[in-house]
Amino acid sequence: MSLENLIKAAYNESVEGNRQGDKLEEIGAIQRYIRSSKKIIIPNWNQSKVNIINKVLKDFQIPEAEHFEFHTNSADLSRMPAITKAQMALDLCECDLVIARGRLGIPGSGSLMIILDSKGRVLTGATSPSHVVHKKDLVEAVEDEITQCLERIGLKK
Amino acid sequence: MSLENLIKAAYNESVEGNRQGDKLEEIGAIQRYIRSSKKIIIPNWNQSKVNIINKVLKDFQIPEAEHFEFHTNSADLSRMPAITKAQMALDLCECDLVIARGRLGIPGSGSLMIILDSKGRVLTGATSPSHVVHKKDLVEAVEDEITQCLERIGLKK
Repeated sequence: MSLENLIKAAYNESVEGNRQGDKLEEIGAIQRYIRSSKKIIIPNWNQSKVNIINKVLKDFQIPEAEHFEFHTNSADLSRMPAITKAQMALDLCECDLVIARGRLGIPGSGSLMIILDSKGRVLTGATSPSHVVHKKDLVEAVEDEITQCLERIGLKK
Repeated sequence: MSLENLIKAAYNESVEGNRQGDKLEEIGAIQRYIRSSKKIIIPNWNQSKVNIINKVLKDFQIPEAEHFEFHTNSADLSRMPAITKAQMALDLCECDLVIARGRLGIPGSGSLMIILDSKGRVLTGATSPSHVVHKKDLVEAVEDEITQCLERIGLKK
């Protein structure tokens, strides 16, 4: 079933009050969408983050992503910067998938990686701790986030 | 410094292009806000989730949360159900903090726990895998999410 029809069916379940949580069929549809994406973009100024995301995508047999550069600073002036950055990228570039990383909420709230489809629908995401708290190397943090984004919806290396 | 002034300072850094990520001072302000919250609400129909969240809050010396019941099904018809549910609760109840759990994005996208302050600003959050993928017990999943929400901004038991 298409994402549209799966979403419609889930809407009806929610309206009728008998929605029981995610279904394997829904997760399978997200997996297929991600695996079959032709153009994947990563809005960013930092090539090293793109490289590590691409290394993980390759491990999961997902097509390589392109670095999409634009001034993303203004996203930090919004309430949910990571999501704003992803939506800005989608509005600026024809693509199948956006993988964006940025602040979850207010300054100090740590980071969120979020994956949107070509309509801006949220397919998956993962948070990680503030850098000053976890002291994790940036590349390692990004690697963990993209891995978690993919594994939590059942994708495997 | 107040959250307002910290946010204003971070905005200016972003506009000037010299923002370097979360600061200890910002994380400290989030910690203080959470610890000093008097009225904390959890929008939900499920008392067992409230109980486990309260057990973890107690471990972190954070005041007990109240169960705030209302029909949350409609949140699942929005693009980011967990965030919608948290905002709905905030709009319906005078409180200092909302702890909400719901779907991250489209059906199949797994869960997000999100913590908002009294203005709806996002303080912290944590994702977890779809139930059908991780097979984790619901209570255990909720316990992990609230623990992660608090630990990622440097709060300790």
